[in-house]
Amino acid sequence: MGQIICAGLGPGDPDLISVRADRAIRGARHVAYFRKPGRQGQARRIVEGMLAPDAVEYPMEYPVTTEIPFDSPAYNHLLSAFYDDWADRLAALAQDGDVVVLCEGDPFLYGSFMHLHVRLQGRAEVQVIPGIPGMVGCWNASGTPMTWGDDVLTVLMGTLPEADLARHMAGSDALVIMKTGRHLPRVRRALAAAGRLDDALLVERGTMPGQRIARLADVTAEDCPYFAIVLVHGRGRRPMALPKVAE
Amino acid sequence: MGQIICAGLGPGDPDLISVRADRAIRGARHVAYFRKPGRQGQARRIVEGMLAPDAVEYPMEYPVTTEIPFDSPAYNHLLSAFYDDWADRLAALAQDGDVVVLCEGDPFLYGSFMHLHVRLQGRAEVQVIPGIPGMVGCWNASGTPMTWGDDVLTVLMGTLPEADLARHMAGSDALVIMKTGRHLPRVRRALAAAGRLDDALLVERGTMPGQRIARLADVTAEDCPYFAIVLVHGRGRRPMALPKVAE
Repeated sequence: MGQIICAGLGPGDPDLISVRADRAIRGARHVAYFRKPGRQGQARRIVEGMLAPDAVEYPMEYPVTTEIPFDSPAYNHLLSAFYDDWADRLAALAQDGDVVVLCEGDPFLYGSFMHLHVRLQGRAEVQVIPGIPGMVGCWNASGTPMTWGDDVLTVLMGTLPEADLARHMAGSDALVIMKTGRHLPRVRRALAAAGRLDDALLVERGTMPGQRIARLADVTAEDCPYFAIVLVHGRGRRPMALPKVAE
Repeated sequence: MGQIICAGLGPGDPDLISVRADRAIRGARHVAYFRKPGRQGQARRIVEGMLAPDAVEYPMEYPVTTEIPFDSPAYNHLLSAFYDDWADRLAALAQDGDVVVLCEGDPFLYGSFMHLHVRLQGRAEVQVIPGIPGMVGCWNASGTPMTWGDDVLTVLMGTLPEADLARHMAGSDALVIMKTGRHLPRVRRALAAAGRLDDALLVERGTMPGQRIARLADVTAEDCPYFAIVLVHGRGRRPMALPKVAE
């Protein structure tokens, strides 16, 4: 009986996968990953060239949402059935050996694998290998330290109500806003209301080819992909540089 | 002329270092790391057995604080002079080749290297390799997903005033509290005031030998190391499991 091993892939650059996850991925006979129907998917793209020639792939395609609103009870049921089904299939596969499930970023930070994880409890041995979260890759790409001293860091979803966003933005030193995309106008208004818009950066495809970093104030709503991340860097306590004698 | 390469080491298990940082560390001729005087230091301990036999080591020992309060202007000046001095020495070393600086967790998330990073701007080529933050290792060790759906995640330092802690704790879904140690009684009171104490875990040495996970409510103040991390997991939106027909 094998394990179900969820390998955190990190922010996108395959060189930023952990040594343990890299080894698990290269040695895997069964490899599963989420993707939208008809797409290659970001997780699969990250491991391009790493899979064994005889690896069997299991693309787990999210249910199509064009006919049903994303936040409706009907879609909720569809998605739940999808996770139930794949939990069953992975548990059955694991009877014959290890199965590696690829997950972008860190699997336990807003990851889809968590919906399989809860469903697999007591049914299969599950191992989760952590990864560098996408937001960490984005602030690394910005070239600027994210939090200093006793800075408060808050991670927000762009899907939250505007008043909630603004309240958190005003009360925190450093900010990460994920799932921006079509919520960009709301995120911008909330940042402006909190007095933080001028400090906000939009990071797209952090650590990946085509990486883009822009001031959020300069980005138009049409130009913001769903997975872009907004960052406001902290500026907390730090020891001041002493005046230096000219060298 | 070489680079100054800051290698994020991740949460502690050497197997969780990224492929890129692993390569940089194993190939390094000059290796610098922070530590307290007279200690081996956590960063150096993580890479035990990985350094090249001819690697030259540069332990950067923090100034001694026994005589001076940690938060005094005098200590601030001492610390600033310490960072100034090491920025000078690393910049000089980099004239002859690459220098690898070891940093636990992710270097840009509350890391000491940031104080060198600001001082090295324009003086040397600096490359920062991100790492899995210590808090990610801790929630992975807890075996439970950290954030779901549109959960708000807030990262707090135990050094903050109690009222600030309690306000953030009450307003956030998932919580990470770092730098607990001697601030544990305050952190506990703030969690209790926010109604979150019963959900809080203390994770010590996450992903490392001697890892310990306990309910915070069961831990006494004398028993809390400075680098232990307190976690409150989010419980946000997720598709409900459908009732299943008995198999």
